[in-house]
Amino acid sequence: MIQPVLDHLAAAQPAILARLDALLRIPSVSADPARAADMQAARTLLTARLREIGLSNVGELDGGGEPAVFGEWSGAPGRPTLLIYGHYDVQPAEPLEAWRTPPFEPTRIGDRLYARGASDVKGATTVALEVIAAYLAVTGACPVNLKVFLEGEEETGSPTLAAILERHRDRLAVDAVLSADGGRASASFPTINTGARGSGLLEFRVRTAAKELHSGRYGGSVRNALHEIAALVASLHGPHGEVAVAGFDAGAREPDPSERAATAAFPFDADAFFAEVGASPHGEPGYGARERITLRPALDLNGMWGGYTGPGGKTVIPDLASAKLSVRIVEGQHSSVVLDAVERHLRAHCPEGVELEIVSRTDGAPASTLDPAHPLVLAASTVLEREYGRPPVPVRLGASVPITAVFKARLGVDTLMFGYNLPDEDVHAPNEFFRISSIADGVRGWARLLDELGRFPASAFRTGHAGALDAPDASSDRRSA
Amino acid sequence: MIQPVLDHLAAAQPAILARLDALLRIPSVSADPARAADMQAARTLLTARLREIGLSNVGELDGGGEPAVFGEWSGAPGRPTLLIYGHYDVQPAEPLEAWRTPPFEPTRIGDRLYARGASDVKGATTVALEVIAAYLAVTGACPVNLKVFLEGEEETGSPTLAAILERHRDRLAVDAVLSADGGRASASFPTINTGARGSGLLEFRVRTAAKELHSGRYGGSVRNALHEIAALVASLHGPHGEVAVAGFDAGAREPDPSERAATAAFPFDADAFFAEVGASPHGEPGYGARERITLRPALDLNGMWGGYTGPGGKTVIPDLASAKLSVRIVEGQHSSVVLDAVERHLRAHCPEGVELEIVSRTDGAPASTLDPAHPLVLAASTVLEREYGRPPVPVRLGASVPITAVFKARLGVDTLMFGYNLPDEDVHAPNEFFRISSIADGVRGWARLLDELGRFPASAFRTGHAGALDAPDASSDRRSA
Repeated sequence: MIQPVLDHLAAAQPAILARLDALLRIPSVSADPARAADMQAARTLLTARLREIGLSNVGELDGGGEPAVFGEWSGAPGRPTLLIYGHYDVQPAEPLEAWRTPPFEPTRIGDRLYARGASDVKGATTVALEVIAAYLAVTGACPVNLKVFLEGEEETGSPTLAAILERHRDRLAVDAVLSADGGRASASFPTINTGARGSGLLEFRVRTAAKELHSGRYGGSVRNALHEIAALVASLHGPHGEVAVAGFDAGAREPDPSERAATAAFPFDADAFFAEVGASPHGEPGYGARERITLRPALDLNGMWGGYTGPGGKTVIPDLASAKLSVRIVEGQHSSVVLDAVERHLRAHCPEGVELEIVSRTDGAPASTLDPAHPLVLAASTVLEREYGRPPVPVRLGASVPITAVFKARLGVDTLMFGYNLPDEDVHAPNEFFRISSIADGVRGWARLLDELGRFPASAFRTGHAGALDAPDASSDRRSA
Repeated sequence: MIQPVLDHLAAAQPAILARLDALLRIPSVSADPARAADMQAARTLLTARLREIGLSNVGELDGGGEPAVFGEWSGAPGRPTLLIYGHYDVQPAEPLEAWRTPPFEPTRIGDRLYARGASDVKGATTVALEVIAAYLAVTGACPVNLKVFLEGEEETGSPTLAAILERHRDRLAVDAVLSADGGRASASFPTINTGARGSGLLEFRVRTAAKELHSGRYGGSVRNALHEIAALVASLHGPHGEVAVAGFDAGAREPDPSERAATAAFPFDADAFFAEVGASPHGEPGYGARERITLRPALDLNGMWGGYTGPGGKTVIPDLASAKLSVRIVEGQHSSVVLDAVERHLRAHCPEGVELEIVSRTDGAPASTLDPAHPLVLAASTVLEREYGRPPVPVRLGASVPITAVFKARLGVDTLMFGYNLPDEDVHAPNEFFRISSIADGVRGWARLLDELGRFPASAFRTGHAGALDAPDASSDRRSA
């Protein structure tokens, strides 16, 4: 049943490219209020397309911001229901002068299709829709039930995503999420994203006086807010870059041998990793660089400021200094507990005569973990092994994936990222591109993935996302560790 | 001979106030290019006044910026020649909404005359000019030779003062400088400023990568410019706030018992000093607060910044962080040597993988010291003891006085600050005022000071500013220590 679908998709390549071209020509920049009409144009184009391919209940789901585009197909009773996630908004194209081709006039150069949003993520979103279209056109059915959900605010931090999910909770009941966003690590080496670090944010400031003081009149006799914040910040890490906050890694599950083996199996060129960004390795002893960024929590200052920062000099003793920091947490941790530990450390290290204020705090996304025995992982593994000729390596992301956390929190389900963009495609930067060859790879991969997922009964997912799987190699203790 | 001058000045109070009022009405804001015509108006008023009171060679001395107003009187052969320093420019009046009376409409409320520039320093400049006028009007002569020099760029950092002094070096040959700027410490306790700390500026930055990195993708594996600059800054001071830079106080003359006694004699209310600005005491053990700010060198961060400092959060690992610092140095030190020590410390504490760059460096004013046996000090002591009924206490300033250093470097002479403004008069701030009673006190003090200085032969100064005095209590070793 799948081969005719694959043949159809192969033959449809010119039409697929034409439809992607039309979508890329719409400057749907969600951050720019002047682009509101373009955002609507993108929704109009996509809702028309969803109707055309045969979805029902097509429309916009509004949460008070840019609505999401929705459409569903539910003709596979007993089979799982998947939310197919993509987004139709793009980053601003500025700085325009850095583009070699106009950002909203898609330009093909060799295997590359240059346009804002080509890689992030109109290309992979189109791939997903085309596979659904092909199934319905060729066989009149899909292997699974589908709820297409195309967000319009991914690039502005999904401000109303939770509201949309809450408002349309019943309509969005699904067994799992399949995301066209979140790319491949490599075109030649298969990987499956099985988790991501969580995050949290903290901004604090110190005050040492009621006002800025003259460094001549007071210098040597009073505390200086910059000296104090420097001492506080310096106390957060040890000499190797390890976090020196008591209780910071409390709860963090120690990576087990299989995870360390999987991390080692990923073809990671540490020298190139650091050389590419002009940095040198620095971090917690006992772990390799890739382990440090995927399996261990981290704490980084994101910004710090105080006093006079303009041209020339101004001989002041600043009364106030501020810092923003973010934490990355791993499975087993809660950002609220970790941020509590950071707050306690700051208070414990704040000397008398210095006033510490927590300005703001965001308990961000929790770490996410996909069970290796989850049907999403099993199905993806089967597809990728066939496509690449070798079993995929499970990899965890160092970064957080907020939508994954939101889906887990609001819909109670797991997300598999199955995007086809690649790391070098200059997303968020000038001259963004998507590989045309990734379209052929992508539609084949997605067609096979839906086919594989259709072999599972819906009940496999319902057990799965509750935390315990029946599959023989499931280790349910991992999820509750 | 002096009593008729004092009587004349007492009787002239209404006229003096009227002339001060006219000067204060001119918004001579040197920092504001839109005020160029007002700057010229102030010069026109002052040159007219200098001619009116009988000075010769009256005119403007140009150094490429705002010219200084000049006039001289040289009818006292054998007597010293003094440069009478004041300035006719003022700080901007902004924020205007914070003024209770219009800043350029002088308003008398009780003993206070509110106006921008009243205290800094048109009030005391007027005092000096009125005394000269009275001497010439009443006796036809002054006790000393005079070169009036009214700067127009004091509030913008005297950018062309050195150029003016160089260009007009011959015309500005003097034995000493008497400054109307630099106020009294107290209305009830007599002090003489016998020195000031010098200063120097250094800006540096650290780089840890070629670009800003994503804290998710790199967090825990690379150095963070903010962590590194914090560690460097924290290393500059010890736990009590003492400077921890090797060689930092090299050359600093240890305060001798007489200086410590003089410092202790100054009625300094440490509790009030700190409470007034909401700060708490912190600094080098073994010294009191006032010793720390006048007799010991200091190092303060003036500004520090890096990474994301806008609203909300941005999960970046900054590649670059910057800091500005200033040093205060004391007698016996050179700012170049002290800044060398700071640079050496930073380099020694900068770990591998961190690039340190000295962005800019300003070897500022040297520390200045007036010999206690200098005729300026002896004359001022006599006057103040008579005025206050007790001998003045020599005090040193924690801040630097750039013009004092420039006069020393360019004209080779010492400066006595003999201003009559008081510390609470909100200079550089809204609602600046000058005490009307300070006009009567000031003209009496200045008349007596010129009279006392006229008792010295010019030769006493020429020896004096060379560093060795004949006076019995001179300790010439102090200056070369």
